[in-house]
Amino acid sequence: MRLEILPVLGIGDVTEGDDLAALIATAAPWLRDGDVLVVTSKIVSKAEGRLVDVPADGPERLAARDEVLAAETARVVAARGATRIVQTHHGFVMASAGIDASNVDKTRLVLLPQDPDASARALRAALRERYDLDVAVIVTDTMGRPWRNGLTDVALGVAGMPAIRDHRGEVDPYGNELQLTQMAVVDELAGAGELIKGKCDQVPVAVVRGYLTATAPDDGLGARALVRDAELDLFSLGTAEARAAGLAAAANLAAGPGAAPADPASVARAIAAVAGVVAPATVFTTVTDDEVRAALTATVPGWPQRATGLVLGEPPTPVDPAGLVRLGADLQRLRTALAAEGVPSTLLPPPPGSTAAACLAL
Amino acid sequence: MRLEILPVLGIGDVTEGDDLAALIATAAPWLRDGDVLVVTSKIVSKAEGRLVDVPADGPERLAARDEVLAAETARVVAARGATRIVQTHHGFVMASAGIDASNVDKTRLVLLPQDPDASARALRAALRERYDLDVAVIVTDTMGRPWRNGLTDVALGVAGMPAIRDHRGEVDPYGNELQLTQMAVVDELAGAGELIKGKCDQVPVAVVRGYLTATAPDDGLGARALVRDAELDLFSLGTAEARAAGLAAAANLAAGPGAAPADPASVARAIAAVAGVVAPATVFTTVTDDEVRAALTATVPGWPQRATGLVLGEPPTPVDPAGLVRLGADLQRLRTALAAEGVPSTLLPPPPGSTAAACLAL
Repeated sequence: MRLEILPVLGIGDVTEGDDLAALIATAAPWLRDGDVLVVTSKIVSKAEGRLVDVPADGPERLAARDEVLAAETARVVAARGATRIVQTHHGFVMASAGIDASNVDKTRLVLLPQDPDASARALRAALRERYDLDVAVIVTDTMGRPWRNGLTDVALGVAGMPAIRDHRGEVDPYGNELQLTQMAVVDELAGAGELIKGKCDQVPVAVVRGYLTATAPDDGLGARALVRDAELDLFSLGTAEARAAGLAAAANLAAGPGAAPADPASVARAIAAVAGVVAPATVFTTVTDDEVRAALTATVPGWPQRATGLVLGEPPTPVDPAGLVRLGADLQRLRTALAAEGVPSTLLPPPPGSTAAACLAL
Repeated sequence: MRLEILPVLGIGDVTEGDDLAALIATAAPWLRDGDVLVVTSKIVSKAEGRLVDVPADGPERLAARDEVLAAETARVVAARGATRIVQTHHGFVMASAGIDASNVDKTRLVLLPQDPDASARALRAALRERYDLDVAVIVTDTMGRPWRNGLTDVALGVAGMPAIRDHRGEVDPYGNELQLTQMAVVDELAGAGELIKGKCDQVPVAVVRGYLTATAPDDGLGARALVRDAELDLFSLGTAEARAAGLAAAANLAAGPGAAPADPASVARAIAAVAGVVAPATVFTTVTDDEVRAALTATVPGWPQRATGLVLGEPPTPVDPAGLVRLGADLQRLRTALAAEGVPSTLLPPPPGSTAAACLAL
């Protein structure tokens, strides 16, 4: 068993309306059933006319590029300086929505294909119908990734094979069931193709020969199977953006109290977390005694009956307006620290008869 | 030009102290100068004795596994449920620090090699010295990645070639200089090797033939060149972790004011951001007049001379203790919203003669 990676030479420049199937079949008469065609998305985009005219330089070019980027963006994931990592309408997360100014006239930008899976299916169908070739097609682009320098080619679209090879449920020779072994083989094939394509050598198509016999039949899902839902992703937002969202959430904390009793350890951690920044004279007293708490919350009109705990805030003496304002600020800090521990809270006037000036119901 | 990907069959089970160079050279007498060996890190780890004994099951196994994970972890990047994405001491960001329980006895865990670049260099040196073979070596592991389902094999260590192929400075046929074209070719080679290795077929080594002639000479940096510094990474923390860090930062906001004048638009946005949650009677007045501000900050003893703006906080009338506490909480919310806009602030008593009960110096 062996795999071969072959370049398809002589395709030349591709322009709008070009027949990719004809270009490829002519340049590679040696194609065989079972080959995997690894096709750079740029020539697909060009053939499909996914180009936008922009000024060659100056601020007008930047403005036009920003406009194009906004149109291609479903959601901004992260930004720093001029870098924009966005989720495209396809669901792919990538820099600048895959918009590319290389290998094209200076007055044009190349967008990603509108539907790369459909592009792959169309090319595969054309090769089958007109050239009697049964091949798989992968449409690729070059992407960066978090944590690792350097780019790799990955799949945007696929037809004729599943994007993922699933080993789950298989058992290794030691009797361990394989759990985490869904391999994104089309991404590995895209990268393998890139090894031979090169960037400046005008080789936009590679062929991987010998692989397809090993795969399951096409599941019809295309490369969409590679897109992870943002809700399932642990990195759905850039760190700075998520941190800013945390700050914004802190400014907008809603009033609790929570549905479940607050964990005393979480409350203690929250109080400890703000110990260095609250006024030295501010005292937080945690009321944990069930009977006291029950009496307070059950008998004081207007108090939330759901409160499962209290933190009394006692200001410095003598009590002056500045001390009360500062106590309010300190209690809001504590509410934020409680929220960071997952403990909702509400700021309330003090229970009658206590020496506190205000308190938090948990 | 073509590349070939060949499996090295018959290596069998690898145990501590095994001579990998001998195992590979014996199993693949067909190796040639210029081949790239793509070696699964697991057999490197096993040969190097990077194994830990753990109970076969039960809570003891989980506890032992947690301990091993903590030892292999430099920094937790993200956590959800039982999933831990961590940065290892090598700098790699991966699930469970690459600790693996597959293809090994149920009572052992396999750790990553201590220094995969050194492992690659040692194997390359042994093949050259003892078998007169001049090959490149890539030590690989299987990793997930953000945003895309499925795993791919990538490089942990490399010797005999640079990890990255750098196209920067090259010019495409249209005259555009290539900017973002540092290709992580060793990751693509790792993935290409995985295509043939498979998971359960006990093929831990693949050979990529025909590639090395195209590469620059070894830069000696190894796969460390692939590790991006956390400070440079837009995704150095999980979204939930970064959001919690934002909440924690909000609870611990330091006193400003800032070094640069606050942007009035940012201040207005911050006030608007908390408009829905502050007490309806609370009024924030932005003092933007330079002379008023200068007089306030220059003449009131104890006021920071650096203040570049003020937000006065006026409580509802009549002014009661509860109103003052609430004002303090509202001003702290506003401080947080200002911080989210990048505007530092300090809570201060009101300037003498104003109707405010407190204010923020910006």
